[in-house]
Amino acid sequence: MTDNPIAPRTPVSLLGTGAMGTALARAWLAAGHPVTVWNRTPARTERLAAEGAAVAASAADAVAASRLVVVCLLDDASVGEALEDADLSGRDLVNLTTGTPAQGRARAAWAEARGARFLDAGIMAVPPMIGDAKSGAYVFYSGSPGLFEEHGDTLAVPAGTRYVGADPGFAALHDVALLSAMSGMFAGVLHAFALIRREDIAPRDFAPLLVSWLGAMAPAAHKAAEHLESGDFGKDVVSNLAMQVAGSATLLATAEEQAVSAELLTPYMSLLERWLADGHGDEDTTGAVELLDLRRE
Amino acid sequence: MTDNPIAPRTPVSLLGTGAMGTALARAWLAAGHPVTVWNRTPARTERLAAEGAAVAASAADAVAASRLVVVCLLDDASVGEALEDADLSGRDLVNLTTGTPAQGRARAAWAEARGARFLDAGIMAVPPMIGDAKSGAYVFYSGSPGLFEEHGDTLAVPAGTRYVGADPGFAALHDVALLSAMSGMFAGVLHAFALIRREDIAPRDFAPLLVSWLGAMAPAAHKAAEHLESGDFGKDVVSNLAMQVAGSATLLATAEEQAVSAELLTPYMSLLERWLADGHGDEDTTGAVELLDLRRE
Repeated sequence: MTDNPIAPRTPVSLLGTGAMGTALARAWLAAGHPVTVWNRTPARTERLAAEGAAVAASAADAVAASRLVVVCLLDDASVGEALEDADLSGRDLVNLTTGTPAQGRARAAWAEARGARFLDAGIMAVPPMIGDAKSGAYVFYSGSPGLFEEHGDTLAVPAGTRYVGADPGFAALHDVALLSAMSGMFAGVLHAFALIRREDIAPRDFAPLLVSWLGAMAPAAHKAAEHLESGDFGKDVVSNLAMQVAGSATLLATAEEQAVSAELLTPYMSLLERWLADGHGDEDTTGAVELLDLRRE
Repeated sequence: MTDNPIAPRTPVSLLGTGAMGTALARAWLAAGHPVTVWNRTPARTERLAAEGAAVAASAADAVAASRLVVVCLLDDASVGEALEDADLSGRDLVNLTTGTPAQGRARAAWAEARGARFLDAGIMAVPPMIGDAKSGAYVFYSGSPGLFEEHGDTLAVPAGTRYVGADPGFAALHDVALLSAMSGMFAGVLHAFALIRREDIAPRDFAPLLVSWLGAMAPAAHKAAEHLESGDFGKDVVSNLAMQVAGSATLLATAEEQAVSAELLTPYMSLLERWLADGHGDEDTTGAVELLDLRRE
């Protein structure tokens, strides 16, 4: 624990000094943690070495240098390769490499079989946000509760922490779910800009309207959650599926008038139309989640 | 002007007393405006009559009753039909009927040819938000600046007002652009809930993460606007197109693992891949707006 400002800080070994790994290492160095780094391409550790990091000659050496080992590599396969010859026995391995939930679960089993405690992680930030407490950056963690309890303070140095459960797949699942929702939002934003771009409307005047509208409408997800919790999609419906589908016609007609391809809008509209055809017109649109479920019978 | 609280309030005639029209009429009645209503199905005016509205026997009578005439009907064709026999000469016609920009422009020319000033409008609210100053509800207006200047205070009674230009198509264009962006966001939200719904993750615990993430990421539209203003998509890029496309693979793989159809995500990913193939990997993703432009040569 690092509550005592003159207590020695927990040593951290960091494998992978790309943009994100470098930002993480700097944050720990700035907070006084001894940091050992390793990178497959050694030249990418030179700046960190100049800033006080020890450089390990091999991944195995980096793992040997600290009990807390943080891995931030290109992908899950790189993690397996880098750690192949390392002795993980008694180590606390934290995997900040981007991956899927299944990769997180498999890597957890792999690490535990080698005697390590394991946390998978999903970073909700870009490198410039790391180490800046005001940036809102945070990281989802899931897996060993003991590891998170012991090293939570150290992990909180570069970015906020959100522990989302013992299932090591949950960090990646939360990460991917949020990024997927963002991807949909960005698709919508791109379509919106496409609609106005040939008109005498300045993007810089339009953007604040867009940002405040999306911010005001995002909380509709709370209502969607209520409907999913209860399974009763017909309760407390403000704008029902039939009204939403009717409104889609104006969106499509406007895209056509503005000579904008509607390809980013049509899949959601088609999904809602199919759910309407299934007889759910009086309900909230959230019930259409059923149509996305490929295990549906 | 209604600055003087004891000055007589501007009379308003309202055509169309569906859910939205009724909410509008109530807000004006509550603020002391004389309100005359008309609806094709007269039974739908009874409650408003009991609350103090005068009921006109025909749309033409309603138009004759007040200089300020507000129309809130099913669609643009209904507006033309309802007003066919009305004398619009010297009237100030405000069209809150949902429509496209081209419909707004055509209806403006139609109204002006009949001697009326005209404003088209796009309502950014559902009926329960009308008349509630804290709801954040507002209405885009475009068209006659003189009409908006004269009646802006009256129009501000049921919901906030945002005048977006003399082009009568701009209110509908702003409305549709924001609704289109929201549609994309809701598609993303639906996909996110689909990813977690068979896991031991409560929607009510997940929704706050989703809402705050989308709220934090929506301001990326300001950066997109800067890129569109400058036309230089390679300047100040935080996460470039190549990185975004690489990240898509994890989103798709996770959807497959969770047995969730990726149909709501793939069109945006395909668009970004095509723009990457066109050689824009180092740039911001916003440049892909070009691919949505059907007038592109």
